[in-house]
Amino acid sequence: MPDNKSTMKALVYTGPNTLELLDRPMPVIQSPTDAIVKMLHSTICGTDLHILKGDVPAIPCDRVLGHEGVGVVVSVGSAIDGLSVGGNVLIAAITACKVCVSCRKGLEAHCVTGGWQLGNKIDGTQAEYVRIPHATSSLYKIPDGLDLRACAALSDALPTGLECGTLNAHVQPGSTVAIIGAGPVGLAVMLTARLYTPSQIVMIDLDDNRLEHAKKLGADHGVNSGNPNAMETLKALTDGQGFDCVIEAVGIPKTFEMCQGLIARGGCIANVGVHGHPVNLDIHKLWDRNISINMQLLNGVSIPTLLRLYQSGHIKPSSLFTHHYPFSDVHQAYQSFQTASQTGALKVTIDF
Amino acid sequence: MPDNKSTMKALVYTGPNTLELLDRPMPVIQSPTDAIVKMLHSTICGTDLHILKGDVPAIPCDRVLGHEGVGVVVSVGSAIDGLSVGGNVLIAAITACKVCVSCRKGLEAHCVTGGWQLGNKIDGTQAEYVRIPHATSSLYKIPDGLDLRACAALSDALPTGLECGTLNAHVQPGSTVAIIGAGPVGLAVMLTARLYTPSQIVMIDLDDNRLEHAKKLGADHGVNSGNPNAMETLKALTDGQGFDCVIEAVGIPKTFEMCQGLIARGGCIANVGVHGHPVNLDIHKLWDRNISINMQLLNGVSIPTLLRLYQSGHIKPSSLFTHHYPFSDVHQAYQSFQTASQTGALKVTIDF
Amino acid sequence: MPDNKSTMKALVYTGPNTLELLDRPMPVIQSPTDAIVKMLHSTICGTDLHILKGDVPAIPCDRVLGHEGVGVVVSVGSAIDGLSVGGNVLIAAITACKVCVSCRKGLEAHCVTGGWQLGNKIDGTQAEYVRIPHATSSLYKIPDGLDLRACAALSDALPTGLECGTLNAHVQPGSTVAIIGAGPVGLAVMLTARLYTPSQIVMIDLDDNRLEHAKKLGADHGVNSGNPNAMETLKALTDGQGFDCVIEAVGIPKTFEMCQGLIARGGCIANVGVHGHPVNLDIHKLWDRNISINMQLLNGVSIPTLLRLYQSGHIKPSSLFTHHYPFSDVHQAYQSFQTASQTGALKVTIDF
Amino acid sequence: MPDNKSTMKALVYTGPNTLELLDRPMPVIQSPTDAIVKMLHSTICGTDLHILKGDVPAIPCDRVLGHEGVGVVVSVGSAIDGLSVGGNVLIAAITACKVCVSCRKGLEAHCVTGGWQLGNKIDGTQAEYVRIPHATSSLYKIPDGLDLRACAALSDALPTGLECGTLNAHVQPGSTVAIIGAGPVGLAVMLTARLYTPSQIVMIDLDDNRLEHAKKLGADHGVNSGNPNAMETLKALTDGQGFDCVIEAVGIPKTFEMCQGLIARGGCIANVGVHGHPVNLDIHKLWDRNISINMQLLNGVSIPTLLRLYQSGHIKPSSLFTHHYPFSDVHQAYQSFQTASQTGALKVTIDF
Repeated sequence: MPDNKSTMKALVYTGPNTLELLDRPMPVIQSPTDAIVKMLHSTICGTDLHILKGDVPAIPCDRVLGHEGVGVVVSVGSAIDGLSVGGNVLIAAITACKVCVSCRKGLEAHCVTGGWQLGNKIDGTQAEYVRIPHATSSLYKIPDGLDLRACAALSDALPTGLECGTLNAHVQPGSTVAIIGAGPVGLAVMLTARLYTPSQIVMIDLDDNRLEHAKKLGADHGVNSGNPNAMETLKALTDGQGFDCVIEAVGIPKTFEMCQGLIARGGCIANVGVHGHPVNLDIHKLWDRNISINMQLLNGVSIPTLLRLYQSGHIKPSSLFTHHYPFSDVHQAYQSFQTASQTGALKVTIDF
Repeated sequence: MPDNKSTMKALVYTGPNTLELLDRPMPVIQSPTDAIVKMLHSTICGTDLHILKGDVPAIPCDRVLGHEGVGVVVSVGSAIDGLSVGGNVLIAAITACKVCVSCRKGLEAHCVTGGWQLGNKIDGTQAEYVRIPHATSSLYKIPDGLDLRACAALSDALPTGLECGTLNAHVQPGSTVAIIGAGPVGLAVMLTARLYTPSQIVMIDLDDNRLEHAKKLGADHGVNSGNPNAMETLKALTDGQGFDCVIEAVGIPKTFEMCQGLIARGGCIANVGVHGHPVNLDIHKLWDRNISINMQLLNGVSIPTLLRLYQSGHIKPSSLFTHHYPFSDVHQAYQSFQTASQTGALKVTIDF
Repeated sequence: MPDNKSTMKALVYTGPNTLELLDRPMPVIQSPTDAIVKMLHSTICGTDLHILKGDVPAIPCDRVLGHEGVGVVVSVGSAIDGLSVGGNVLIAAITACKVCVSCRKGLEAHCVTGGWQLGNKIDGTQAEYVRIPHATSSLYKIPDGLDLRACAALSDALPTGLECGTLNAHVQPGSTVAIIGAGPVGLAVMLTARLYTPSQIVMIDLDDNRLEHAKKLGADHGVNSGNPNAMETLKALTDGQGFDCVIEAVGIPKTFEMCQGLIARGGCIANVGVHGHPVNLDIHKLWDRNISINMQLLNGVSIPTLLRLYQSGHIKPSSLFTHHYPFSDVHQAYQSFQTASQTGALKVTIDF
Repeated sequence: MPDNKSTMKALVYTGPNTLELLDRPMPVIQSPTDAIVKMLHSTICGTDLHILKGDVPAIPCDRVLGHEGVGVVVSVGSAIDGLSVGGNVLIAAITACKVCVSCRKGLEAHCVTGGWQLGNKIDGTQAEYVRIPHATSSLYKIPDGLDLRACAALSDALPTGLECGTLNAHVQPGSTVAIIGAGPVGLAVMLTARLYTPSQIVMIDLDDNRLEHAKKLGADHGVNSGNPNAMETLKALTDGQGFDCVIEAVGIPKTFEMCQGLIARGGCIANVGVHGHPVNLDIHKLWDRNISINMQLLNGVSIPTLLRLYQSGHIKPSSLFTHHYPFSDVHQAYQSFQTASQTGALKVTIDF
């Protein structure tokens, strides 16, 4: 029994614009495939802000938020294989059984009894403890020597960047890449796109500070899309040909439409942003341009590869984090993340 | 010298809604890579009707239409390799140099000095003779024993069906496939989709006769989309899961939007229709469904495979043709194709 | 408790060339992820004959053989999801946890706690009951309306044919395909190769009866490799170019070396045969021919697709079976399978 | 007319172990698709040494050697498109028409009227001038600002490394990679493998100097295969799992056999070495390990990508070159390359 406590502190969404740090019962094993994890580090995702605003009405008003983080296994169900109590684990944002009809098709995001569960269908990781269903397949042992806090970027941000951005845009050696949105997810796309050595990565944002940060992390160019000549500047960077790979990492109609103006013949648009509205598709201009538009929720299948690349020093997850807060200051962590344009926040951690 | 004639008969677009059968100068070799082909069989494409309506203003008012057909080589430029005068050839709808930056990327459709040239940028195949640029790479020798008239379906209809429809929708053994539009192009998608043995092919159209024809050619189901319960019927065919592969072969917003309602999680929408208007994309419903939307003009690269499959009896191009007219009756051929719902016409040939 | 019996009849390998029908304890659930299946139909695989000959010394002298079959679930462990007692199930030859490092890479054949277990590392399916580890992922519900006996071909033969043969040889529409070995596995390759509509399938064997049977099931040509002109005949079938796809389904050096003489430039050799000896590779003739040689144990991942194709009538598993025996005549079943050249046996079933 | 000269200096293979610097007639345009190139820089390939030893008897005793280099176009045939007299060009080692049955399949290496022509079927690049057939598709304009001498590594070494090594071994982010042979071709594999960010690259050679050089260019480890514990050391580097990608860049049976001991389950062996003898394949140990063995002659299709990556600073071709000689010292250049273990030579250039 974890720590012999019967209650724990948890950040609870109690209604639009309201988060409360409450005492909640300790989570318990409900199925032989569950594990209970004591949190060490959690983070806040842009999706949490959507929930907070009341944009996701399906989420009930007593939900513990959070789908990212690392922790220590404190108990496991009888069918758990390969996880031991006391071991450090990375929690995947996507819970997957690996055997349902969706998982067998490589659609873990749509696992019949999983998918995006944490901080959505069940209580999440912004709490002292969390119950993880399908734990054998949804937790990853963290190799010795890695910075646990940095690993929290591998729950969602980096695998989303790789799977939904880089792979879905078919980034290849020599590709020209434009990424719209230089927030944490756009930067995660950039860090993972670099794994394939494109010839050029251009970041596009309205915030010059974010563009500067992106250039420090390896972007070749930063273009402020608020600049009236932005489209001309962008076209010129590819000699008028457009970009082979265009990634939308914002989630509004304007940026999705911008993608359509930037894509080269034969190119791929990958949508990473979470959208709340329909968009206009200029198919009368695009139908004969031999392009693809790809969109997906992460499946999480790239997490083992990302762990290996972190271990070998080829990717630096810590570069996505700017601010760190103890769990007791979690409201401040949200505040900082919500006002990122003033605080310069990218990913923030909540440390337990 | 082709027949020692100095003029030939040609069908000329002389302005919106006007086609005239006129005397035109014989085409001549203009470049070492040209060939002159004497037409044996030409066909009419839906795109020719768009031009005729005046929908493609870039096309000048003295253009000979047509980008499909088979013929006999009557003269070749000095750099032509592997084509001999007197040989029967299939004319690809797409002219490709194979060496420009686009062709090297596998984008023959966007060949810098080619692409869709015939009946568009230069005079086309609805004439007694036609000049073919980049002839070595844009003409295909027809193996002995094939029906020359049937081969005309390999200029555009079948490679479009295969490349833009079947391959772009990732049809695989066991896939469920919905094809919207049971005209010649939709049927070409169906005939080529069958090469991959999907578990189910459903054709969708407003014309019951076309649906019946599609079923005779191998569709598992035909659904009339004018029926108010059409969407329910379609959903039921896949137990509510949607289709793995949805192909748009009409070219209007309504049918493209229908695709979005039919696609399964993890599926591919392939657009084959030629669109004149933007469409609505319900990205707020689709962003997390792990789907792709692919659109392209054919590259023509599948023509050798299609020839081989015709030769081995695995595809029957003649099943796309319903009507045949001598060139002197070309106006009647157009009339029949334009009023397909009354005449039951699919592809029509013009025989020389 | 299955049938309240404490013992069952089982076919036990008791040493080289000895199989005995013995009373054995009923299998019991050992792990929350186990299921117990009452066998309805089992089959014999060529691999069972290897074991019987004593060629696989790792197999202990009290092993129940068999890794194929269908049955009814009679009990399930506490962590089993989606399987109900009383349901008909197909047993995959490969046991897979789906979450270990191998399974996550798509190498279920090398599952750390699975792989080829049945009739090898643990007791198998040639018994009245069998314990199946990792049952949620290693058993497949059989849809209503399918012939249960025919489904036994989906445990190993057909997925081996598809995964190790057809997919590994990259069979595509229009390919030319040569399959060496017209036994059950070679035929399974052929049946699954046809899903991709190659332009030509040539079966090669020493047994004219098997070649005739292959032609009845859809082979375009049968060539007896005992014929001194066999290689010339085979070359002539592809106009001297060789075959795009060559599949070895025998497992001896001579046939593997034959593959090297048949492969076209740019082609793929897929090895399906189980080999006991090294072979000669003429790399000095092959290094510059742009070929691949692929070899694998099945992963079993194609079973859901094959079930769907059987259900939709696109594949006929029963065509692989020639003989059927009650379990009490299991020695006769082995006899018939061992002397296939006299009996004409392909796959044989053992019915309970 | 190039320089109004009627003869030029050329290095001629006049028989086994004999190269002579002779006066030869200036090459002239023989076909409308030819170009004549005045050489600026040529290089020597390991294959040239094979020829020199008399190992390639098909090569006649008056052949000008060499299939690599850069130069200036001095005249073009009437069908040449996109090349201008006076422009700097990179000469591809493989001559390709792009339209024959082989080229259409992506097998430029086996172009019916091309393939490896230069310094083999026709006179090559170790001469003041060279005739290039199919020049439009076999020459590449060199963008301004690149070092012309360094570009000579893009004729053969780097595209061979990328196409035959890196791509054929399926190097992906996070892969473990072993390269046997740290000569120019092995290093070219390494430089191009790095484009995909493998987690580990291990170079294997008998020459410690080459291993040191490889580490300077980015190898993670160098293992001397002459060391009796080499295999243990190599196994330990992957925790006993073997390497995902193993590349043979030597061309002798011993090294090819070493590959078989190093490959992980699910891995790919890519053969890059030129072999003169058959090898032993331990298929009895490998048949069930889910591996691929891929071998090919380069097609040259990656040259545009490599030029772009050089231009963007992502690949440094000059790092392959160690020695430079004027054409008058070409015998010394050969000497230096032949005695690489003493001279430390990797690629050497011959400068005109």
